[in-house]
Amino acid sequence: MASDETLAATAVHAWKMNLERAEKFFLGLSEDQLQKEVAPGKNRLIYLFGHLIAVHDYMLPVLGLGERRHPELEDAFLTKPDRAVGELPTRAELHQCWRDVHDTLRDQFARLTPAEWLMKHTLISDEDFAATPLRNRLAVLLSRVAHINSHLGQAALAPK
Amino acid sequence: MASDETLAATAVHAWKMNLERAEKFFLGLSEDQLQKEVAPGKNRLIYLFGHLIAVHDYMLPVLGLGERRHPELEDAFLTKPDRAVGELPTRAELHQCWRDVHDTLRDQFARLTPAEWLMKHTLISDEDFAATPLRNRLAVLLSRVAHINSHLGQAALAPK
Repeated sequence: MASDETLAATAVHAWKMNLERAEKFFLGLSEDQLQKEVAPGKNRLIYLFGHLIAVHDYMLPVLGLGERRHPELEDAFLTKPDRAVGELPTRAELHQCWRDVHDTLRDQFARLTPAEWLMKHTLISDEDFAATPLRNRLAVLLSRVAHINSHLGQAALAPK
Repeated sequence: MASDETLAATAVHAWKMNLERAEKFFLGLSEDQLQKEVAPGKNRLIYLFGHLIAVHDYMLPVLGLGERRHPELEDAFLTKPDRAVGELPTRAELHQCWRDVHDTLRDQFARLTPAEWLMKHTLISDEDFAATPLRNRLAVLLSRVAHINSHLGQAALAPK
């Protein structure tokens, strides 16, 4: 493997490892556990679960890899805070969305070459990207790895 | 810049960006704020602050870049849980340790070539590394980026 391929593969592997930790945690929660708050008055686990799906779904258009699969999650889990939307998707629906979004991302990521990871994403202008080429697709991936962990760290505080 | 250089630079940039967020948060806390818990009965902010310094200090030997600068932090912030050690370093001492550890890491990282980021770290055997070359120095860096965010996500829950 050429060094650029190994570098890109290392980053994609970090995404996979952290995603697996999140998957093991959130897909393992019961209905009751999903209703628990990470701390008194803070987000419920179901909100963090749906939020991760919605944010990862948005990676498709942000990385220029396609349309979102589940734009219906935006209102409840992205635009609005927890408890602002009365009826949330069921646990089974969220499991299905999780798998659908991440299967799609996995298939797309498997096709990207190192050079393609270094291309611009759709949230940055041509001008800004020319000035700051480190704000590339790989940077988005690493930012999402960080984001997963931000919420996994919080989720670990919830009562068992 | 060759693509392997840009890939490695993107990862180091992600480390820098996340570290800056942590620095802005923890170095901005007053003595009183450092004593706050992230949630009732959970770690205090001073523990997370010292813990990040101790974990990052350990990156020097883990990455084969030198000895730890502040092994005296291990007992209070790494081996033992919060409140197990009676007397902690002062806020000023922790600020000094933070700067010292991260200045050292920054200088070391600036010298590493892409190929050197792909070398094995010291926590993995030659045999295991031959089988799983993605467990390289860069993977350690990305793991620490995730770790920062895990605790920053918790820290954001603490009362202001």
